[in-house]
Amino acid sequence: MGKKEFDIVRLHHAEITVTNLERAREFYCDGLGLFETESDENHLYLRAIEDANHHCLVLTKGNQASLKHIAYRVSRDQDLDELDKLFTRLGVKKCWIAPNEEKGQGRALRIQDPGGIPVEFFFEMEKAERMLQKYHLQGNVKIKRIDHANCLITNIDELYDWYSNYLEFKTSEYTVNGKEEHIWAAWMHRKPSVHDLALISEKGPRYHHTGFWMDDAKAILDACDHLASLGYYANIERSPGRHGTSNAFFVYLRDPDGNRIELYTGDYFTNDPDWEPVKWHLDNPQRATFWGALPPDSWKKEAVPVEDIYTGQLLPVETIKRFENI
Amino acid sequence: MGKKEFDIVRLHHAEITVTNLERAREFYCDGLGLFETESDENHLYLRAIEDANHHCLVLTKGNQASLKHIAYRVSRDQDLDELDKLFTRLGVKKCWIAPNEEKGQGRALRIQDPGGIPVEFFFEMEKAERMLQKYHLQGNVKIKRIDHANCLITNIDELYDWYSNYLEFKTSEYTVNGKEEHIWAAWMHRKPSVHDLALISEKGPRYHHTGFWMDDAKAILDACDHLASLGYYANIERSPGRHGTSNAFFVYLRDPDGNRIELYTGDYFTNDPDWEPVKWHLDNPQRATFWGALPPDSWKKEAVPVEDIYTGQLLPVETIKRFENI
Amino acid sequence: MGKKEFDIVRLHHAEITVTNLERAREFYCDGLGLFETESDENHLYLRAIEDANHHCLVLTKGNQASLKHIAYRVSRDQDLDELDKLFTRLGVKKCWIAPNEEKGQGRALRIQDPGGIPVEFFFEMEKAERMLQKYHLQGNVKIKRIDHANCLITNIDELYDWYSNYLEFKTSEYTVNGKEEHIWAAWMHRKPSVHDLALISEKGPRYHHTGFWMDDAKAILDACDHLASLGYYANIERSPGRHGTSNAFFVYLRDPDGNRIELYTGDYFTNDPDWEPVKWHLDNPQRATFWGALPPDSWKKEAVPVEDIYTGQLLPVETIKRFENI
Amino acid sequence: MGKKEFDIVRLHHAEITVTNLERAREFYCDGLGLFETESDENHLYLRAIEDANHHCLVLTKGNQASLKHIAYRVSRDQDLDELDKLFTRLGVKKCWIAPNEEKGQGRALRIQDPGGIPVEFFFEMEKAERMLQKYHLQGNVKIKRIDHANCLITNIDELYDWYSNYLEFKTSEYTVNGKEEHIWAAWMHRKPSVHDLALISEKGPRYHHTGFWMDDAKAILDACDHLASLGYYANIERSPGRHGTSNAFFVYLRDPDGNRIELYTGDYFTNDPDWEPVKWHLDNPQRATFWGALPPDSWKKEAVPVEDIYTGQLLPVETIKRFENI
Repeated sequence: MGKKEFDIVRLHHAEITVTNLERAREFYCDGLGLFETESDENHLYLRAIEDANHHCLVLTKGNQASLKHIAYRVSRDQDLDELDKLFTRLGVKKCWIAPNEEKGQGRALRIQDPGGIPVEFFFEMEKAERMLQKYHLQGNVKIKRIDHANCLITNIDELYDWYSNYLEFKTSEYTVNGKEEHIWAAWMHRKPSVHDLALISEKGPRYHHTGFWMDDAKAILDACDHLASLGYYANIERSPGRHGTSNAFFVYLRDPDGNRIELYTGDYFTNDPDWEPVKWHLDNPQRATFWGALPPDSWKKEAVPVEDIYTGQLLPVETIKRFENI
Repeated sequence: MGKKEFDIVRLHHAEITVTNLERAREFYCDGLGLFETESDENHLYLRAIEDANHHCLVLTKGNQASLKHIAYRVSRDQDLDELDKLFTRLGVKKCWIAPNEEKGQGRALRIQDPGGIPVEFFFEMEKAERMLQKYHLQGNVKIKRIDHANCLITNIDELYDWYSNYLEFKTSEYTVNGKEEHIWAAWMHRKPSVHDLALISEKGPRYHHTGFWMDDAKAILDACDHLASLGYYANIERSPGRHGTSNAFFVYLRDPDGNRIELYTGDYFTNDPDWEPVKWHLDNPQRATFWGALPPDSWKKEAVPVEDIYTGQLLPVETIKRFENI
Repeated sequence: MGKKEFDIVRLHHAEITVTNLERAREFYCDGLGLFETESDENHLYLRAIEDANHHCLVLTKGNQASLKHIAYRVSRDQDLDELDKLFTRLGVKKCWIAPNEEKGQGRALRIQDPGGIPVEFFFEMEKAERMLQKYHLQGNVKIKRIDHANCLITNIDELYDWYSNYLEFKTSEYTVNGKEEHIWAAWMHRKPSVHDLALISEKGPRYHHTGFWMDDAKAILDACDHLASLGYYANIERSPGRHGTSNAFFVYLRDPDGNRIELYTGDYFTNDPDWEPVKWHLDNPQRATFWGALPPDSWKKEAVPVEDIYTGQLLPVETIKRFENI
Repeated sequence: MGKKEFDIVRLHHAEITVTNLERAREFYCDGLGLFETESDENHLYLRAIEDANHHCLVLTKGNQASLKHIAYRVSRDQDLDELDKLFTRLGVKKCWIAPNEEKGQGRALRIQDPGGIPVEFFFEMEKAERMLQKYHLQGNVKIKRIDHANCLITNIDELYDWYSNYLEFKTSEYTVNGKEEHIWAAWMHRKPSVHDLALISEKGPRYHHTGFWMDDAKAILDACDHLASLGYYANIERSPGRHGTSNAFFVYLRDPDGNRIELYTGDYFTNDPDWEPVKWHLDNPQRATFWGALPPDSWKKEAVPVEDIYTGQLLPVETIKRFENI
């Protein structure tokens, strides 16, 4: 480790595109129980029950479902300058975002990572009311906080090394393919959970889902009941189950535009210094679903495009050379 | 069994007294999540999530907490006439209640049972909207239905025989005292659960609590969180735990007037013809709390008086001869 | 109702065929946590946690998965004679089973119901140790009791009337098809739950599954974890979810021979005299799965044959005229 | 922050004294489901479900219940040398423990902290089989990992500053007393949870309890059922409930010697750089129990003594000047 020039704390929020803000508000606030901190003509700034800051999810009006950026919080304001120096040195595409350009947030550094994913780093954000012990103001769906981002990329060798070596991400679990056991996917973290970031070898760059933390499996089932009776039964894409990788209990949802949400609980502490990443083979039937039931095709095939941080254009999706689809 | 002249289905509702209807509405509707079917100057008619009828709880304005009556539903209207004949024969104090005198309810027969408890029998009740699969309209506290009534009486020998022989109640579990194993309490049922009626040897006649059914232990803990954050933390009289008798998981609440509510889950099927009632000794430390923690004194000592069905006066409370307090 | 000549209490047990008793013991005892009361060369007699009697499931050695019979318990021994008279009058195929021919059980009357399902009625059964409060002797999978039998038949009009009129089954919910709303399936009960018996219009007679009761959804998820880590992940046929019909939470399993088991929780009280059966349309997407995810094809298409009560031969499977498959 | 000379990862294990190893094995292994990694005449080395190392709890034979030490794991072996330098500089009582003197563990540095608590720092520990996804080998009580240590001390001003300034512990929540709002207790952490260490102003130095993490509230209730039916009902000292401070759901147990264990779940992420510690007033009725029920006297008054790291003698217990008892 040695002297640390910067310290990335955790995945902190995501900004995704929706085509109809009012429809999105109904899904995310009435449906998922997120709290609206602020909104304007083109944005909804939402936070979860545990959040003491302005937002963990930004919904921005646009033409189709997409990822605008995911954002990591750093420990100190000067960490941003250190990251800027690093990205200059590495030749990474980057730009500064002025304070409050993303509402409630201080200055931020945005990059296109070597896999094509738009990623932001920031330190400062306005405080907001924390709802944790205001149980009577919580709804039936009790999302506690954002947990992770799951990205589909075509160059996992490069990207895995990049996040490991330059940004000091650690790996909790990974998947290998074939007899050579070539890396196919990695669950990487800064906070000591299973992941802040999952990298999966697939046509990309694409964004598979944003994972949110819930307290327990029952809370996830309660969420399904609430969503289903509110009319969102078809938005429950993949039935509740347990992942082999991560050991987490999950359900997968699609918002009305197709952005995917995972409600997630049950992983474990990952920061012991002698942690040995758990290895899964791609063909292990208990890898994706510990209980053996297959996910629907849409979950395996569909994901949303990501934006160019300069132009806002959607990046073209490429096929990886080495692998077939999952 | 033979020819059955009447068939009592289950405990169906209770009518209790509160001193302030608005304060009671806040506790029972905002706090406990019961649905208000109808109300007038002196009454609130409430129903639970499963209920397809007008009410499972009536709150009536009065001078102090008390039980006005508990009510059993019968299978057919003519069962009421058969019960009337029986009570005439037995010399039981009784009166008819005209249709809609208790709102939404058909004609009813009310008695003072030989233990002094005011008990009603009825067949007909208006339908009301059932909320079971309207999860999005349910609040954080999800009471499904009424389950049982717990009464303190001084003459258990007499009363146990009376309910067993004349009203065909069965016994799921009972408690005995001393070396002679004299009966001290009985859990009696018509529906095939642990009880519709618990009879406990104590100063009486008094009403200890109304038990409501919840789906699982987690739902009871969620209720505690909601109530506590709404300001009702001091109304949680006895911490969640498991009873030895009944094997149920519980929490006990007091409403703002002191009427006691049990949230209850987890009992079992009791209608097999060779069921042998479970016997508990009064001094078994796992009887009242399977996990061993002691209830607070208030739970052991306090209960509300019951009304005379003719005068509405509170009946005097007598001490039983044979037993000391619990 | 009037004078009741007999009283059917509830579905009490099922006897199914397995091809390898040792393999079945591993699945049902080590996997599902059922307790072995007794066994011989050709049978395993199993009971669940709540059971105070000899068995709720009999596994019998045979050539392939099949239903040998389902059994209802009656309230009195003479009820069997009354049923015998009734079946004689109706011309139902029937035979008496001598005491202890099915181990632990008194005399029994077995019939082939008008849908072809082999059904037994009995009163007496040996007692066995009840494990309900022996938590430390329970395993990770905590099945409490048998709940219901789900049968595929081709003549629902006839069979629905037969169970309603002659055996006094009540209906909690039902499914209709088309504009004429012809009955397609019915959930029928004797105990006051959603069902002891489900009748579904499909190629038949076949046996779809035996449903077992668990206390809550978490217990069902725990069962999946235990089974999956024991190697039975491929036996989890259909992921946990909530049914629209019955409102129950479920998971479906297949034993090593293909017999189907449902772990089930969460239905409601159904014995109020003015209960109006819940009607579902066959094309309602929330009917089979309230949360919208589709069951796998095997769950919709596969079921096991049933035996002729005289010969033990498997009955031929016929296609219903009126309906296509689900 | 700046250059970090050392990095304390988390509370990793505790060593406590029991008077009868066989009796302790029954309680901790059969009762609490901990796994025995190794044992000798005087020690049991236990680990929990998530643990990939040799032990999270050491039970050592002795004359009475006491704390021998709590231990923090550091990120690198050289961190131990940095800590040694720091403690030399600060004049802290300390000694080195040779590799394998505590079985399975590398060299360790042990101190008596300024509050009198015996504390160990180590880096290296043998690996052991991780049971996380071996659900079928887990028992009814599913402890995942150690979470925190709760210590009673008489000099909180000094100790709070010492852990904050020298060991870089952060504070998630704290309690103040009186109008001057003098600090009375602090919940301090290295891992980003509510705490690794709780410091409480009370007669001391004493050790109140070791907290273990469970996945959810239901797992804690299941533990109570298992313990109670195994005969340990009187060892459940304080009924399950929710703490105000930490927002966690808990139950408190006493082992057969009186050492106290907390089963704990439900806290939150605490590492955001602008985290503002939650302040509680000592007289807030929802502070210790969010739901309002009072803990038993034993929980408030009793705790075990701690050992002198040189002599193994129990340290004398002193009364703090400023405060009365809780």
